[in-house]
Amino acid sequence: MVGNQKGDESGRPARWEILDRTEEASCRVFSVVRKRCRHPVRGREDDFYVLESSDWVNLVAVTPDGRMVLVEQYRFGSEDLSLEVPGGLMDLGEDPVEAAERELKEETGFVGRRSRLLGSVRPNPAIQSNHCHIVLIEEAERLVDVDWDENEELAVQLPSVAEVFAMAHSGRITHALTLNALFLYQPIGLADSRGDLT
Amino acid sequence: MVGNQKGDESGRPARWEILDRTEEASCRVFSVVRKRCRHPVRGREDDFYVLESSDWVNLVAVTPDGRMVLVEQYRFGSEDLSLEVPGGLMDLGEDPVEAAERELKEETGFVGRRSRLLGSVRPNPAIQSNHCHIVLIEEAERLVDVDWDENEELAVQLPSVAEVFAMAHSGRITHALTLNALFLYQPIGLADSRGDLT
Repeated sequence: MVGNQKGDESGRPARWEILDRTEEASCRVFSVVRKRCRHPVRGREDDFYVLESSDWVNLVAVTPDGRMVLVEQYRFGSEDLSLEVPGGLMDLGEDPVEAAERELKEETGFVGRRSRLLGSVRPNPAIQSNHCHIVLIEEAERLVDVDWDENEELAVQLPSVAEVFAMAHSGRITHALTLNALFLYQPIGLADSRGDLT
Repeated sequence: MVGNQKGDESGRPARWEILDRTEEASCRVFSVVRKRCRHPVRGREDDFYVLESSDWVNLVAVTPDGRMVLVEQYRFGSEDLSLEVPGGLMDLGEDPVEAAERELKEETGFVGRRSRLLGSVRPNPAIQSNHCHIVLIEEAERLVDVDWDENEELAVQLPSVAEVFAMAHSGRITHALTLNALFLYQPIGLADSRGDLT
């Protein structure tokens, strides 16, 4: 019970000091870093483990006839197939909108006419340093061949926007970052539809 | 370009075979595991790194006067303060609703009258094995003292439900799993409010 210890006079929690960083494991798409930290008021020191990686991007791509471009792929964390919006790792210094257009094209062969950033989230601020940027791509059509990397294999699905939201609320779509993309798209989708996306 | 290779006759992607698992690092709240995997059709083998951990729970707690219980805390991944719904690690075999009631009580001192599971998401099926369960706790009131663990320090905020959704759409709230909780709560919140949560 340490409920009365406050880090500063504003009543907000204290920011710990980072004393040292040690890379514990290098895992291709992320590194595991151990941070030695000290609480500035309590004086307590402890180790905390976090993942450091480049930013990610995912995207809501909508076709001219009101369908959303989803991909189903095998995922090694869940050891199961997963139905998701397209997305991936951003290159260093890459613009989120350009990264989203690249991922959509490579993964599905779709190209849109208008793109813009809807927002950015933190996949998990407790253990991850990075952001996931969420981009809307409108008037998307299949114009080119896919260009998968050597471990990719995706099946494109084109449900209506209303069907996508129904799958998100029924548990058919479970990927947290895909659900974030739908959350940020929802006010726009509501304005474009009959208003029954929830 | 391997776009024409399909894993089976249904047109769905193949499920890779897991040949071997090796723990690369043990990091308190998660382990890093390297999986040696083989594609059943392409024959290709490769290593994939994933985090294994217990399931997580987070919760939407609403007070009798229509406010949501949020917590602000320092996070070691983002190295910044983060405004979130309460939540945490589940104990082995713990029921999600009981875990949510325990976390709400320990972190904030609030206790509700009715609780139920809203749904379960996968924080990141690409690199994580676990689920995050999302629980609704209604008629929550501050009834007991907080019971933080030795590294916890949280400041409770009680914005109105409409203010919480405004903060989620403005970028003030960015934690992906908190946004998932709001997404699953939204249809209920809309029914209880003036309908202006988006």
